[in-house]
Amino acid sequence: MHESDWIKSYIAPLVDAPGAHGLRDDVAMLSANGPTIATIDTLVEHVHFLPDDPLDTVGQKLIRVNVSDTHAKGALPAEALLSVAWPRDKSEPLFASLMAGIGRDLKTFGISLIGGDLVGTDGPLTLTLTLTGSCLAENPIRRTGGQAGQALLVEGEIGWGGLGLSAAKSQGNPQIVERYRVPRVSDGEIAKTVAKIASASMDVSDGLLIDAARLADASGCGVKLDLESVPLAQPTAQVDDIIAQCTSGDDYRVLIATDPEISISGFTKIGELTESIGLKLSYNASDVNLPSTLGFEH
Amino acid sequence: MHESDWIKSYIAPLVDAPGAHGLRDDVAMLSANGPTIATIDTLVEHVHFLPDDPLDTVGQKLIRVNVSDTHAKGALPAEALLSVAWPRDKSEPLFASLMAGIGRDLKTFGISLIGGDLVGTDGPLTLTLTLTGSCLAENPIRRTGGQAGQALLVEGEIGWGGLGLSAAKSQGNPQIVERYRVPRVSDGEIAKTVAKIASASMDVSDGLLIDAARLADASGCGVKLDLESVPLAQPTAQVDDIIAQCTSGDDYRVLIATDPEISISGFTKIGELTESIGLKLSYNASDVNLPSTLGFEH
Repeated sequence: MHESDWIKSYIAPLVDAPGAHGLRDDVAMLSANGPTIATIDTLVEHVHFLPDDPLDTVGQKLIRVNVSDTHAKGALPAEALLSVAWPRDKSEPLFASLMAGIGRDLKTFGISLIGGDLVGTDGPLTLTLTLTGSCLAENPIRRTGGQAGQALLVEGEIGWGGLGLSAAKSQGNPQIVERYRVPRVSDGEIAKTVAKIASASMDVSDGLLIDAARLADASGCGVKLDLESVPLAQPTAQVDDIIAQCTSGDDYRVLIATDPEISISGFTKIGELTESIGLKLSYNASDVNLPSTLGFEH
Repeated sequence: MHESDWIKSYIAPLVDAPGAHGLRDDVAMLSANGPTIATIDTLVEHVHFLPDDPLDTVGQKLIRVNVSDTHAKGALPAEALLSVAWPRDKSEPLFASLMAGIGRDLKTFGISLIGGDLVGTDGPLTLTLTLTGSCLAENPIRRTGGQAGQALLVEGEIGWGGLGLSAAKSQGNPQIVERYRVPRVSDGEIAKTVAKIASASMDVSDGLLIDAARLADASGCGVKLDLESVPLAQPTAQVDDIIAQCTSGDDYRVLIATDPEISISGFTKIGELTESIGLKLSYNASDVNLPSTLGFEH
């Protein structure tokens, strides 16, 4: 591994923002105009992705977990700084594959790579991305703005992350595996909707149930979820199967609270914020007991 | 390890910037005004620090390597995002120690911690910091602005990093070990000087010889260094010992090119940029052959 050669061969070609100075300097110039957010996420081999996952898909996932946070706050991704701790025994073609995946999704989401660090490690591949985002409103939409009586809505379908992970572990349907490796995230149009109409917002990354409870808790409310309304990757009338898809995480879809009379294309109403705190589940108007695990607990 | 408890106990208390939203949200709000730079650096156990280094000193080093880059560009550190990949078998008191060291240097350098990520790993401790900086001039001072005929100056002393590392490996003088673990970096007053008078600037992190060659190369020049002029941690008339201190790295002192008639307190003139490219060494006006290694090569 020769850091400076690899930077020249595989990273510098992905860079065209003037603030990056062609990666030939020690720092990057941020070009942020207007209210700007930043997020940082780290993916570790064995923890956040599987050793068998092709590295181009791991690169895409690194971008997408950060993009998902940004869109969920009503902001559009802008500039990125990348850190790679690369296992010294992994080959150069694998590094090329990682950077190809990262390059693909920098383009997909209109992100400028402006800086980074590449270091060797004796441990697992560890990737960190810092992503800035331009707020479409005056401020990012926080988790805290929800109010009792507001509707809870989710964008897209829930459960693909968990189904894909199971499929990956059992060498199942490649199309479903792909939904785990390269998650579909709520897009920039959704970010615009969030900025326009959401009182509170976050992305569903640890499981719908736990993240709905977190949004309600941050807003000082409780939440009632109607399980029959959740748009599922695999629709089913079995409550256990619904709950499995609502607790498996890695969905990267946006969850918002907004006024109940608003109907929004792409979003599905799945419940409401309540005065009484805590999470309540129902299925076709009958109460459902909470499962022992609401999602991925950090 | 319980990420959310540890964040509440050890990280949230270090946070007071309004843009951090008490670390209770998914993103931070950047408060940057005026021209702003960003840098990202990763430290890996066994590679960038020793397993025996106390973790509070590792936390300080993480801040300082980024601060050094920022000061060298004529900018003052502003806001930070922290990512920690924490070995699951390390204890909670060790985490508390790491965060205490980080907290100490956030204060020392006036940095606001605004966001982060904490994940588990089965590998070595891996720390990444993204640091923004407010430029004191219109732009950061790049490596590229030097011109043949300009003087090359260095701030502070060269060689403490290498001497400290040797001492750490041989259980030597603790005060010298400390200079490796918690490097003294060029301070904010130096950043002001850089912004005011430097044509080109960078910090010496991989060794004075290699970094002087890089600055000259980026500026399209060569460089002639007078070894007898270099301010050393351990002054000596032995050329080999001088070269050892000038190639060991981890110095974190600022190296600048500026007009030859300028004299600046704290800086020592050590050579000049030349028309003919490449690095030339002399000692008391006699040519000195280049050593086989100019510093730490990535």
